[in-house]
Amino acid sequence: MLVSDIVEYGARKHPDRIALRFEDETVSYGELRDRSRRLANALLDVAAPGDRVAILSTNCTEYFDCYYGVPMAGMALTILNYRLHAEQIVALVEHSGATVLVVEKEFAELVDGIRDRIPDVRTVVVIGGSGAATSWDSFVGGASAELPSVLPTADDIAWMVYTSGTTGMPKGVMLSHRNLVSGITSSALQWALPEGTVFLFCFPLCHVGGYVTLLNHLMGSTVGILRAYDNATFLRLVEEWKVTQTGLAPTMINFLLQDPALDDHDLGTLEAIGYGSSAIPAPVLREGLERLGCDFYQGMGMTELAGNVLHFDQEAHRRAANGETGLLAAAGKPMRLANIRVVDDELADVPVGQIGEMIVRCDQVMAGYWRDPEATAAAFTDGWFHTGDLVRQDDEGFVYIVDRKKDLIISGGENVASLTVEQALYRHPGVAEAAAIGVKDDTWGEIVCAVVVLRDGATATAEDIVATCREQLGGFQVPRRVEFVETLPKNVTGKILKRDLRDRFSPAPPDRPQPLRLTPPPPHVATCGDQSGPRVPPSLTRTTEQP
Amino acid sequence: MLVSDIVEYGARKHPDRIALRFEDETVSYGELRDRSRRLANALLDVAAPGDRVAILSTNCTEYFDCYYGVPMAGMALTILNYRLHAEQIVALVEHSGATVLVVEKEFAELVDGIRDRIPDVRTVVVIGGSGAATSWDSFVGGASAELPSVLPTADDIAWMVYTSGTTGMPKGVMLSHRNLVSGITSSALQWALPEGTVFLFCFPLCHVGGYVTLLNHLMGSTVGILRAYDNATFLRLVEEWKVTQTGLAPTMINFLLQDPALDDHDLGTLEAIGYGSSAIPAPVLREGLERLGCDFYQGMGMTELAGNVLHFDQEAHRRAANGETGLLAAAGKPMRLANIRVVDDELADVPVGQIGEMIVRCDQVMAGYWRDPEATAAAFTDGWFHTGDLVRQDDEGFVYIVDRKKDLIISGGENVASLTVEQALYRHPGVAEAAAIGVKDDTWGEIVCAVVVLRDGATATAEDIVATCREQLGGFQVPRRVEFVETLPKNVTGKILKRDLRDRFSPAPPDRPQPLRLTPPPPHVATCGDQSGPRVPPSLTRTTEQP
Repeated sequence: MLVSDIVEYGARKHPDRIALRFEDETVSYGELRDRSRRLANALLDVAAPGDRVAILSTNCTEYFDCYYGVPMAGMALTILNYRLHAEQIVALVEHSGATVLVVEKEFAELVDGIRDRIPDVRTVVVIGGSGAATSWDSFVGGASAELPSVLPTADDIAWMVYTSGTTGMPKGVMLSHRNLVSGITSSALQWALPEGTVFLFCFPLCHVGGYVTLLNHLMGSTVGILRAYDNATFLRLVEEWKVTQTGLAPTMINFLLQDPALDDHDLGTLEAIGYGSSAIPAPVLREGLERLGCDFYQGMGMTELAGNVLHFDQEAHRRAANGETGLLAAAGKPMRLANIRVVDDELADVPVGQIGEMIVRCDQVMAGYWRDPEATAAAFTDGWFHTGDLVRQDDEGFVYIVDRKKDLIISGGENVASLTVEQALYRHPGVAEAAAIGVKDDTWGEIVCAVVVLRDGATATAEDIVATCREQLGGFQVPRRVEFVETLPKNVTGKILKRDLRDRFSPAPPDRPQPLRLTPPPPHVATCGDQSGPRVPPSLTRTTEQP
Repeated sequence: MLVSDIVEYGARKHPDRIALRFEDETVSYGELRDRSRRLANALLDVAAPGDRVAILSTNCTEYFDCYYGVPMAGMALTILNYRLHAEQIVALVEHSGATVLVVEKEFAELVDGIRDRIPDVRTVVVIGGSGAATSWDSFVGGASAELPSVLPTADDIAWMVYTSGTTGMPKGVMLSHRNLVSGITSSALQWALPEGTVFLFCFPLCHVGGYVTLLNHLMGSTVGILRAYDNATFLRLVEEWKVTQTGLAPTMINFLLQDPALDDHDLGTLEAIGYGSSAIPAPVLREGLERLGCDFYQGMGMTELAGNVLHFDQEAHRRAANGETGLLAAAGKPMRLANIRVVDDELADVPVGQIGEMIVRCDQVMAGYWRDPEATAAAFTDGWFHTGDLVRQDDEGFVYIVDRKKDLIISGGENVASLTVEQALYRHPGVAEAAAIGVKDDTWGEIVCAVVVLRDGATATAEDIVATCREQLGGFQVPRRVEFVETLPKNVTGKILKRDLRDRFSPAPPDRPQPLRLTPPPPHVATCGDQSGPRVPPSLTRTTEQP
């Protein structure tokens, strides 16, 4: 089965059903199939199977022609984050070797400016464009709506998604048709997406999380997409489109619950909300269950896994809301098509309750990193993919993510999970953002260093921060050093770049006394991004930020 | 993903959960995995990947070691119907070229008698055996419970299932790991098999329908199996094992509803019954919904499709019970992973409502017929598999099976569906069994010939039969010839062999005047099989008789 078969099968079963809603536009399954085929045929005139076709665009319905049509032509859709800098785009397009670049009109000028630095690109197609450049309409307008006569195999690369690069240079994750279809089918087995589902997708499509829209198409849902999320649009569209399911991040759910406009809208059609990115705080869950009157489920995955491998189901959420709040620290149980082990450094299974790395081996694990055989080789042992996540599993099978393997701090022989320290830091009312890192230390090997951004007007001292931690943490987990900064370095998807913090603070400059160096808070603390929302540790953010 | 991964993944997720119940025996997921691995390793000592391993056995837990362990060793499990004659077994084992034969103790003597005629078989393993032959226990006893170091690919053949041969010599249907996993996943997406499902499987495992047990294992169910079905055992085990779902044929559901013992049992745990083989009569459905208090769903597939491609869901059953009884003539809608077209002889799609052949192209379509490249080539056009089923699809997407293509009668240029005629014949109270066939005719091309078995004591004449048909059928559909017989020729799974009837009655012997020849009913009419049950046209029986 190919990625494009999702729309092929759907169009055969229910050609007139609405596949997409976007603003005032609707696209039926039959139309989406024809559009995808036209794009595939147009591409086959200017490029060859095996080529990469990059896309730089905000959300629009043409994104779906690309989701399906590029792989249908046997080419790999190279998904670029439109929030990248021009320099980063040059680097990724060059690295991908894309021969075709699809850009939305608003990015056309940016692309003009870098055109001579991406010589592999022979064709630029501008969505919404006209004039000198090839416009989307003219590109696909004359193309046939017949299925191309030669189709790729399921092992060919369908999508190439660049990782956000929190641990180094962005890597091009090659996802074959089989990887994506397997990831989609796996989620389809866990989610309840009944006939008649209207799913509102609230995230950018330039992310592996867009697979959720394909999953909905496999199940015959109508998918609504937003240009950009805001509460007002969301509330209006849930009513207007009679939305039955949606995906939101816990922070978004919290914003929604705090919005007085919520009470002016009838969300009675809403049956379930899927979320990802991070754990949901128990009070938010309880209020959500009560005021939104719908179920909640959670998925956890990675770009390299073409979707999710852990699922935290509706029933478990009800248990959590009814007192078992500890469950909310779990990311879920292994999904039915996922094959997961928790192992030590020698790849031996660790006992239940013990911490080990989660490794995965199944059809949804990526084909490899593009043009990076070393990174690919390093990511696998005997066919098992190293997630780099340190987890423990309880006797019910719930998997709790303890830390990223590279972010684990080892101090005096004790393992300190940076997430644990960060959760303690966030409980200080003055802390806007925080990261815990390990910095080299002659005595302890590493010591825990807290890097903190204070809220506007907050005046906490390092001692205050440490005192808050002491109330919650074991002695070995308490930061022995606190650094106040104005902003935390982040990648384009908002993930904190801990390796940059480690480079900056470890080893400590010789003029800074060890082991406890407390920098004074800066006089003015600029917050990074919108800090008015709930304080969820950003480092809980997963590589895959999908619902 | 391999067929054996179903038990591998399950054992990793919940090793102590019960995978199988059989009489007093229980087998956990962990034990089933270990047993399957032991069998795989034992087989690799006596045979090579690519070999066929045949099994001749009634239901037992060792069947599952074979379901999973034979494919794990890269060998093809060749499933033999234990109700075959010795001569048929010789023919199939020889045709398969199996090098290993697993037999249940009660068939050991039969195998001894044919041993010199199946020279390819180097190893015979006897389940429950001891003495001279290799016993199952000694065969697997010393084998390792580690995963074999070399595993097959998903495109290797996992199961080989001989078709029942209603249309010619039995053919060995080669099902790859991918075919089976796809068929299983497809059904998993349509059925509701929630966590905690206890599924009672009531059919012989020597049939492609056994895939239902693997589907349940994929979903983490506990599967109960029976040595042989009878109402009393069924009712006892539903209570004892707290069965939540089961699969039954409509005739079995009717027997159950007619059984006074039903009222003595608490079937409160039963949530849903899946059925197949044939349509369910509306009164049976309504009574079932009311007295069994559970949902119904139906699947339709074929051996060559590694499971089902049409699904008739719970909601549609409720609609049918609430007045839309016409729906019950449908076999269901195309499943989400199934890709179906309804086409004319030139393979062009026919309009909605028109009759055409159902063709299928997706991952679950068989790899081919074993050692039969001609039959394989004939079964496919451009990758599309010809089901040989004539169907029409309504505007909701429901597929109605009109007839087997080969059983369609073309009389005076008009298509006559044999099923339509048979349904009319069965409404005559004296008819125990009936088949409608086309026989050659110089004027009309073919005429409709009814072949009828009367009930014990019934005395209907040919004119009576024709009169009953005239009340229900168009003139061109009314049989112009009626033949009374004592029994109808059937294959081992009970399907009527219409080609034998055609051979016997067409062309009519020269001494029989055409076009209307009415043979007198035989003085004593022996019924074929148990006719005390509801009269469901046997020709509705599908190649795949699973729930």
